[in-house]
Amino acid sequence: TQTYRITLLPGDGIGPEIIAVAVDLLKKVGQQHDLRFEFQEALLGGAAIDATGSPLPADTLELCKNSDAVLLAAIGGYQWDTLPNDQRPERGLLGLRAGLELFANLRPASILPQLVDASSLKREVVDGVDIMVVRELTGGIYFGQPRGIFTSETGERRGVNTMVYTESEVERIGRVAFEAARKRRKKLCSVDKSNVLEVSQLWRDTITKLAADYPDVELTHMYVDNAAMQLLRNPKQFDTIVTGNLFGDILSDAAAMLTGSIGMLPSASLGSSGPGLFEPVHGSAPDIAGQDKANPLAQVLSAAMMLRYGLNEPQAGDRLEQAVLKVLDQGYRTGDIMSDGMTLVGCKAMGEALLAAL
Amino acid sequence: TQTYRITLLPGDGIGPEIIAVAVDLLKKVGQQHDLRFEFQEALLGGAAIDATGSPLPADTLELCKNSDAVLLAAIGGYQWDTLPNDQRPERGLLGLRAGLELFANLRPASILPQLVDASSLKREVVDGVDIMVVRELTGGIYFGQPRGIFTSETGERRGVNTMVYTESEVERIGRVAFEAARKRRKKLCSVDKSNVLEVSQLWRDTITKLAADYPDVELTHMYVDNAAMQLLRNPKQFDTIVTGNLFGDILSDAAAMLTGSIGMLPSASLGSSGPGLFEPVHGSAPDIAGQDKANPLAQVLSAAMMLRYGLNEPQAGDRLEQAVLKVLDQGYRTGDIMSDGMTLVGCKAMGEALLAAL
Ligand SMILES: CC(C)[C@H](C(=O)O)[C@@H](O)C(=O)O
Ligand SMILES: CC(C)[C@H](C(=O)O)[C@@H](O)C(=O)O
Repeated sequence: TQTYRITLLPGDGIGPEIIAVAVDLLKKVGQQHDLRFEFQEALLGGAAIDATGSPLPADTLELCKNSDAVLLAAIGGYQWDTLPNDQRPERGLLGLRAGLELFANLRPASILPQLVDASSLKREVVDGVDIMVVRELTGGIYFGQPRGIFTSETGERRGVNTMVYTESEVERIGRVAFEAARKRRKKLCSVDKSNVLEVSQLWRDTITKLAADYPDVELTHMYVDNAAMQLLRNPKQFDTIVTGNLFGDILSDAAAMLTGSIGMLPSASLGSSGPGLFEPVHGSAPDIAGQDKANPLAQVLSAAMMLRYGLNEPQAGDRLEQAVLKVLDQGYRTGDIMSDGMTLVGCKAMGEALLAAL
Repeated sequence: TQTYRITLLPGDGIGPEIIAVAVDLLKKVGQQHDLRFEFQEALLGGAAIDATGSPLPADTLELCKNSDAVLLAAIGGYQWDTLPNDQRPERGLLGLRAGLELFANLRPASILPQLVDASSLKREVVDGVDIMVVRELTGGIYFGQPRGIFTSETGERRGVNTMVYTESEVERIGRVAFEAARKRRKKLCSVDKSNVLEVSQLWRDTITKLAADYPDVELTHMYVDNAAMQLLRNPKQFDTIVTGNLFGDILSDAAAMLTGSIGMLPSASLGSSGPGLFEPVHGSAPDIAGQDKANPLAQVLSAAMMLRYGLNEPQAGDRLEQAVLKVLDQGYRTGDIMSDGMTLVGCKAMGEALLAAL
């Protein structure tokens, strides 16, 4: 029996409810695949602010570092929105990414046949969409120096952030993206703004050179403004997309929304060694927290990504994903993805249906 | 009779064909409204590179400065794509924006009832969409210093760009946006990334303070990643959007693509004094250049924006816009917007239909 130590970060809002469902499923899938999970829970985000004053307590980072993978639910909520920026729940997440050196964010956006009508786009435009956005996560303008608000001699304030990438940073994320494309339809589109930005010119240059090592992958380049258009116009043209931290933030959310159901979308954040972080794309939905209304499927699919990318247990990951497809086929729907003729269930009942489907 | 001096920049590709249509219409609408136009033509983009070696010859900038408004068609083409970045056609456009201090870019994205089916989004999602994106155009990461590709002591290259805004830059664009919102549905959404970037915190702060001067306008704030999602999910929630140069580049293109027909979309770029620049959102379409297939309607609508915002001749602008709606009602369509039962026409025939409709 293989044993894995998993840090759970339930976070805020609906977090505790949805992570509970994932934990139950992991236990069961573990039995089926002869895996043992040791779960340890820690505080992040608003819950951590309330208990310790910090959105990322030192204990939490330590525990995460000493685990095989980290499963996060969601953070944030209205009560912390008035805090100064550098004390908000999101800072916990940014700190965790930096602290675990999670430089590669994988965000799949695929349209499930069962939910194609949830999209705001026409069926024929989105049916079959299957995109993987690979976003650089520890560099670019999110972490570049200098940064801050400075006051000039004339007394005027000036806000400054710096978008910076080194060749090795681009190469590192580029390799992850080429490898991901290789396991998919072998098409990689690198997105930048190299007609205006020097940092993007270096990005494009570096990715282009890297392509020599991946002759089986077809590489294209696109400007970020055009990519935003093309995702809307004809999303099926994309297989794997690789881009920097800021462009990836914007485009992965746009790609996610193509599906019309962000309650279904998982993500993985990986470093070169050490544990990965796995979390749903959606937020903490404080308005429905504690009401047994949350959709746990993105959390379960995040656990599946954890099995696949974090623990290298692809069979167990597959099994979790199959369970999700099966409950959808059976017609179970939470409120956010409900449609005519389907069976409306709460978070717990969805969890039970998943357990039965496993 | 009021006389206006207009600099025409036909540019590349389909540029000369579509601007010719707009000129004919301006002449006719001028007669109708007792306006005289003195047209002077100048080189920009690829055409300027071929003739002078520079995408923005000094003569061109001079001529533009000495006119009442500048009407641009489109620039760029395959033959200049291999030039180094700082010599490409786009540099001419960036130079013109800086040279004329055109800090405010107005990009309307409205769905015309005649063309609602061109959208990749469902009819019920886009029918009635009418968004104005106000993009800051001479600041932010497009022009911030330091910038460049630098080599460190270890020999590694590092690309750097700086996103910077001063309070007065934000205030200036903010006022344009509040004024625009006032003339529309009185809702302004300011888009930033203030949960991560200090430059965005200053942006949000400054816009928030400005709101006191516009109590009749409802101000909201949104993060750029969420804005990209919301544009797809429910674009009708937006009236006027104000944002920085880079976010505006991305979001205005996404908003444009909501319509499904960027051959229809005009834009205006304005400074505090001096001439404005008016141009279609679409590119130079080199693949159909010289074949009388281009859609001149975005160019004509850009001329209408020129009349309205550049020359303060709103009645004449209205008349041009009405002519565009009329030819659409009559069923005339160029290839890019063709649909069943409509009459396919070329660029010239569309021009004649417009003249007749005036
Ligand atoms: C919460 C925020 C800091 C974060 C980001 O911008 O990276 C979020 O938008 C995301 O994409 O995970
Ligand atoms: C051509 C390019 C430099 C330009 C920009 O990025 O501003 C274009 O995308 C635009 O939006 O007008």
